[in-house]
Amino acid sequence: MNNKITIKLISMEDIIKSGCFDISAMIEIIKHALISYKNGKILLPDKISQVFNESTQDRINCMPAALIDEKICGVKWVSVFPNNPVFHDCPNVSGAMILSEINTGFPFAFMEAGFLTALRTACMGACASKYLARKNSEVIGIIGSGEQAKMHLKAIKHVHPEIKSCRVSSRNKKHTRKFIEIMSSEFPDIDFVDCESDYESAVEFADIIVTAVSCQLPLLKARAIKHGAFYCHAGGYEDEYEVSLMADKIVCDNWEAVKHRTQTLSRLYKMGKINDENIYADLADIVDGTKNGRENDDEFIYFNSVGLAFIDVAAAKNFYDKVVSAGLGRDWDMKNSAVV
Amino acid sequence: MNNKITIKLISMEDIIKSGCFDISAMIEIIKHALISYKNGKILLPDKISQVFNESTQDRINCMPAALIDEKICGVKWVSVFPNNPVFHDCPNVSGAMILSEINTGFPFAFMEAGFLTALRTACMGACASKYLARKNSEVIGIIGSGEQAKMHLKAIKHVHPEIKSCRVSSRNKKHTRKFIEIMSSEFPDIDFVDCESDYESAVEFADIIVTAVSCQLPLLKARAIKHGAFYCHAGGYEDEYEVSLMADKIVCDNWEAVKHRTQTLSRLYKMGKINDENIYADLADIVDGTKNGRENDDEFIYFNSVGLAFIDVAAAKNFYDKVVSAGLGRDWDMKNSAVV
Repeated sequence: MNNKITIKLISMEDIIKSGCFDISAMIEIIKHALISYKNGKILLPDKISQVFNESTQDRINCMPAALIDEKICGVKWVSVFPNNPVFHDCPNVSGAMILSEINTGFPFAFMEAGFLTALRTACMGACASKYLARKNSEVIGIIGSGEQAKMHLKAIKHVHPEIKSCRVSSRNKKHTRKFIEIMSSEFPDIDFVDCESDYESAVEFADIIVTAVSCQLPLLKARAIKHGAFYCHAGGYEDEYEVSLMADKIVCDNWEAVKHRTQTLSRLYKMGKINDENIYADLADIVDGTKNGRENDDEFIYFNSVGLAFIDVAAAKNFYDKVVSAGLGRDWDMKNSAVV
Repeated sequence: MNNKITIKLISMEDIIKSGCFDISAMIEIIKHALISYKNGKILLPDKISQVFNESTQDRINCMPAALIDEKICGVKWVSVFPNNPVFHDCPNVSGAMILSEINTGFPFAFMEAGFLTALRTACMGACASKYLARKNSEVIGIIGSGEQAKMHLKAIKHVHPEIKSCRVSSRNKKHTRKFIEIMSSEFPDIDFVDCESDYESAVEFADIIVTAVSCQLPLLKARAIKHGAFYCHAGGYEDEYEVSLMADKIVCDNWEAVKHRTQTLSRLYKMGKINDENIYADLADIVDGTKNGRENDDEFIYFNSVGLAFIDVAAAKNFYDKVVSAGLGRDWDMKNSAVV
């Protein structure tokens, strides 16, 4: 009997070196996966969140899913400890992912998933912005200055090369300055405006708004939002209720998944202030043409992404293929300890 | 900012070499963990089972849990593909486990978990047998001849050294003979009886009965069971309903968890044929002395283990400590690809 189980170990460096940092490719993966899910080709059990501290929302999310056609099943194990940068001088997110084939059920890959998480989250927002932001979106306003904020700027700028101004604010002035220092060298064609901790100022002229923070405070105020803006909500509860209540369209990565979580829309749903009728569409319905995206320059469109495990599995499988093609990653025999 | 995440890679060989194959130690871990759970010191989200084939029950289970006092959170990712030995000449179970600390949320270990699964499952049964089997249990009857069957014999013989006869049957005659060949060299004081595929014969004189099979067929018949026996149910649905219905006591590792699964007791519960009142106790209540175990030699006692994620996390943490103490395992930097 063959007892051997060989796992490909894939580090963040392997992922980057093999060309997985590819925004266009990730957006295509997301579109394909959203449609596969809609067509019933995906198993998506509920995300499990273990919360260790209610006030800080320190948590580890366990996110399994299976792609039936690709015969792949996987789980992302991702921690979010919002105070890590302040208290421990380390990132708030860490992630690891196991992939298994569903022929024998054996695992075949173990990979770093912090980078994947940042990239797929930002590309989900960028994918939405393609259908939901105004064509000539020149100003982006960002609340947050961490990895997720940087990645959103990269992904959205990729989809909207017309962006020429970026206004940014966050609770930590040093981090905001660092954000601008790094991003301005990557995007010399963008004019950066340091709004320090003035969240309203960051948002007031923005055609595209991104909130990429893990605090649980309604920093984004409805009154600050420009007519015709597109808002990409990537955190938990960081916008006041009026923001979504005044939206002309609310679009989700997956409303059924959003409902049961703790984001702003989930809270409103649980309070009975919004219901299924208030949700215009899931993004899949817009991607496949069932519903229109933006229909005029006046709409304020609210996009909420909760994070979907099957996107992680699809992205991880794509990363795996690229890493193997590039001859990177290491083989580890899980039964005995050899590492090649 | 410190971006490094170092993971200890722990293979099955590392686990065995560092002395983790220790039945007494595992039984103590189980007892301690059961009581911690009872005392509210453990988070136990529902197990997630992704089933890929309803008829074969090919599945991958995703089992997260957290030990609050130990500040450890983990997930076991374990596949059960019952036809693997026949169709693919490989084991039906494969498993991997991630452990994270809940100070920063970072993962710190990735380990083989097939061995852990087999050992903890058998030791759960052995732990129950200590309280629930007759003192002078000389005959064990086993249905099944795979890894789980072998491990159960080892663990139960450890607790009941008085066992001097082992009757065994399984659907595959070759596997049954192989079981006897291997086990009789390990236990020369036990007389083995090959009952081939005659399940009733395997069970009829047994003081302790174990079913360790992954088929979904009621192989164990009520009429075959000896007066005063202890039955350890380690599979899914492998005993006819009358077996549990005639039991004097039904004990579970955790009845609340059993209820929502697909084992024999779960089926009876969903059909309304048993309810909470029919369950005598969870094992924790017997271990901590709240309830009595076996009270006389006449009782037929049915023990059902569904498998609890917090036992896996507790066992994995114990393995991790032993492997590190033994200087085994390998460090892998998840951000770049160095393996030490």
